[in-house]
Amino acid sequence: MENIHRALRKSLILVLVAWLFVFDCSPKQGIPHGTTEIFGAEMTQRLEVLKIIESVYRFYGFDVLSTPILEYAQTFKGHHGEGEILQFHLKDHESHELVLRYDLTVPMARYIADHPETPIPFKRYQIATVFRDDEIDKGHFREFTQCDGDTVGISDLTADAEVINLAFTGLSMLGFPDFFINVNHRSIINAISVKCGLSGTAGRLHVQRALDEVSKFTEKCVYRDDINSLDRYKAAIKYILEKRGLSPHAIDILMFVCTLTGSFEQKLLMLEQFLSDSPIGLHGIHELKEIFSYLNSNVQKKVNLDLCLARGADYYTGFILEGSIPNVHVGAVLGGGRYDNLVGDLGGSHLPAVGMAFGLERILTALSDLHISTFSKPRERILVVSGTDKDKQLLLEFANELRMKLLEADFVVMPTKNKDEIIAYAQKRGFSQIATLDNERIMLTQIA
Amino acid sequence: MENIHRALRKSLILVLVAWLFVFDCSPKQGIPHGTTEIFGAEMTQRLEVLKIIESVYRFYGFDVLSTPILEYAQTFKGHHGEGEILQFHLKDHESHELVLRYDLTVPMARYIADHPETPIPFKRYQIATVFRDDEIDKGHFREFTQCDGDTVGISDLTADAEVINLAFTGLSMLGFPDFFINVNHRSIINAISVKCGLSGTAGRLHVQRALDEVSKFTEKCVYRDDINSLDRYKAAIKYILEKRGLSPHAIDILMFVCTLTGSFEQKLLMLEQFLSDSPIGLHGIHELKEIFSYLNSNVQKKVNLDLCLARGADYYTGFILEGSIPNVHVGAVLGGGRYDNLVGDLGGSHLPAVGMAFGLERILTALSDLHISTFSKPRERILVVSGTDKDKQLLLEFANELRMKLLEADFVVMPTKNKDEIIAYAQKRGFSQIATLDNERIMLTQIA
Repeated sequence: MENIHRALRKSLILVLVAWLFVFDCSPKQGIPHGTTEIFGAEMTQRLEVLKIIESVYRFYGFDVLSTPILEYAQTFKGHHGEGEILQFHLKDHESHELVLRYDLTVPMARYIADHPETPIPFKRYQIATVFRDDEIDKGHFREFTQCDGDTVGISDLTADAEVINLAFTGLSMLGFPDFFINVNHRSIINAISVKCGLSGTAGRLHVQRALDEVSKFTEKCVYRDDINSLDRYKAAIKYILEKRGLSPHAIDILMFVCTLTGSFEQKLLMLEQFLSDSPIGLHGIHELKEIFSYLNSNVQKKVNLDLCLARGADYYTGFILEGSIPNVHVGAVLGGGRYDNLVGDLGGSHLPAVGMAFGLERILTALSDLHISTFSKPRERILVVSGTDKDKQLLLEFANELRMKLLEADFVVMPTKNKDEIIAYAQKRGFSQIATLDNERIMLTQIA
Repeated sequence: MENIHRALRKSLILVLVAWLFVFDCSPKQGIPHGTTEIFGAEMTQRLEVLKIIESVYRFYGFDVLSTPILEYAQTFKGHHGEGEILQFHLKDHESHELVLRYDLTVPMARYIADHPETPIPFKRYQIATVFRDDEIDKGHFREFTQCDGDTVGISDLTADAEVINLAFTGLSMLGFPDFFINVNHRSIINAISVKCGLSGTAGRLHVQRALDEVSKFTEKCVYRDDINSLDRYKAAIKYILEKRGLSPHAIDILMFVCTLTGSFEQKLLMLEQFLSDSPIGLHGIHELKEIFSYLNSNVQKKVNLDLCLARGADYYTGFILEGSIPNVHVGAVLGGGRYDNLVGDLGGSHLPAVGMAFGLERILTALSDLHISTFSKPRERILVVSGTDKDKQLLLEFANELRMKLLEADFVVMPTKNKDEIIAYAQKRGFSQIATLDNERIMLTQIA
């Protein structure tokens, strides 16, 4: 018995020592939950995508705004409802209560309020990091990039049409061979809620959130006017709506609008008849018609009236849009709409606003799933490898010549002379060629 | 008496009401101390400068690394000495102790330690925001951009020469018509400390910090081999060194090295004689000679041996450099050097390293002081202004045509028809032309 104890104790100590040893020898510290670190080619691709998004905003005449990551906690108080608990709080040395910015919309409104000299209409884009202390297991990030563009101070619906144009140009420039721009209008959703027998804010929100769930499901499902899967699609929608406790009457109505088919104009015509007794519904329909009339035919072809599109945020007041890529199950790659009360609510003057945001992570996933490289052509990157003293001068000069030709050339003195090891290193870092010296002549080796 | 009391009370209440009123009516929330917000043309100029810095790193074959702003507090513990109290601390929902990154060097070393698959030699650049809860009245920022490039794993001095090449290319591409790259070597400073009778770490640091103060003073003063101001310059240096409590013997020596004149080779020759009995000093001199030999003559012309250059950070172990712009009193616009122990100290393997950072804020100030625009040519930005319904379609189409030509075109429906107001708005936003409709023909108006 004592032997067993002794053996147990011995092995326990061994395990403990081993554990301490492993713990001590592994300096791996990692990065906080919900953050990312990205190196080399993957980051280059991300920068290329950001460059395209930035250039689209610039083509459309948006001005760039930069605001700090640190904001006074007061600035973000009371604007994000349940989201407020996701804010990261901290203090500076002077005990000011600070937060890491939660989004880019509140800082924009604060900027307008703080700067009465701001030219209105105000059109700004901002591509920047935001922070949310969110649950990681839902796949949410705690530190991520938003790419917002907004027009503040124009109620004319050409501004809404310009958002669609911008989405069209963006998705085209990013290289998506096919995409949809799904649009809807919050007034239409309101009218449908009333038809469902659910009026008032609570009723409207009930329908809005139910549609949003259906829409998110639709985004991820394969169904696109595919008649074979239509029945399965309908069954799924019905299940979602029933689960949300909607009445059979309301479910009938929502099933009807969610499964309407036809062109933009055809769907709108059917809807116009269906909502003919609703002034608010007709208002939304007429606004969508007017917005559609400002688009050229190439853009019109991509616009789809998606009557179950609702968007999550409460603040939208009119037209809403989302961009989606067929055959890729990432959800919407962009989203936005008109929000005429938010800037005033956030402390600025009462100013109408319409805008959108590109979803960087989803765009990257979609591009990767479709094997689309945004590079016009792969860049020439040449690794200039030197060994002995005599090589250095010649190869260093050669590297400088390549740079003068605007090529990316890295000069390294490698600790190894083994050709295979050098090739492996160059491949790992994504070089296309290796330059070495052979009998005082420069040799270029292409890498597969 | 009572009357006076009553009057006092009355005016106190009035002041209080007025104060409450002002407080309530001003929704200005501002941004935290030490942070900045930048809009429009100023931000565009900043982005152009960042783009140039990024392209320089890429021409030199550096890979891009992105690490999170949020890091575990543990990662930054014990690496920044007195700087550690400047770290911003916060917690996530799971009570992990976090900090906002203080620099980009520690995350780089952590990245290497965390990723044993990292290809060595490791060459990375990172352009990103860092945070320091510093004193604002000293002109320090709490949230600012660093632009670091480092080569890890090469001890060969061609890597040091490449840092000088990179600094040369960077300052040239940024458009500075004239600049110096000042270099020195920590071994030379060590040898000089011994000559001053100050050996050991404390003595070395004493001399290093005194030289650093002299160097910072020199950076900001007009003296550049100008014989007329030499006496005043010498008097100032003497004052600084005396204030630091250095012996007359040490001051004589430091005055001698700080005011050496001549070409790089001439100064090095004089120094070689002066330090002929110091193996450590000769080691530094020979390294600088070797580094210099790897530079082409255009670069050599810009390199200046600045024997009072010391750099602030303790971790440098060899060659150090700073970039300076004549006739602009902003201090060094770039800085760096070799630091062979830091990566190992930070938890990575023991790897030699050499690198530099561009100082974004100082570069922007210097460019602005010298009236240098980094834009190859001012971009054409056209404001397309619409009024009535009929105008819209034609002008919207015109805006889209301009965008197809890769011009920046903003389409706005202005709330005013007053031409002066429209021009003022366009000027404020930096547009070069205004497009309007006149009798169904598009009119372009150039703006001064």
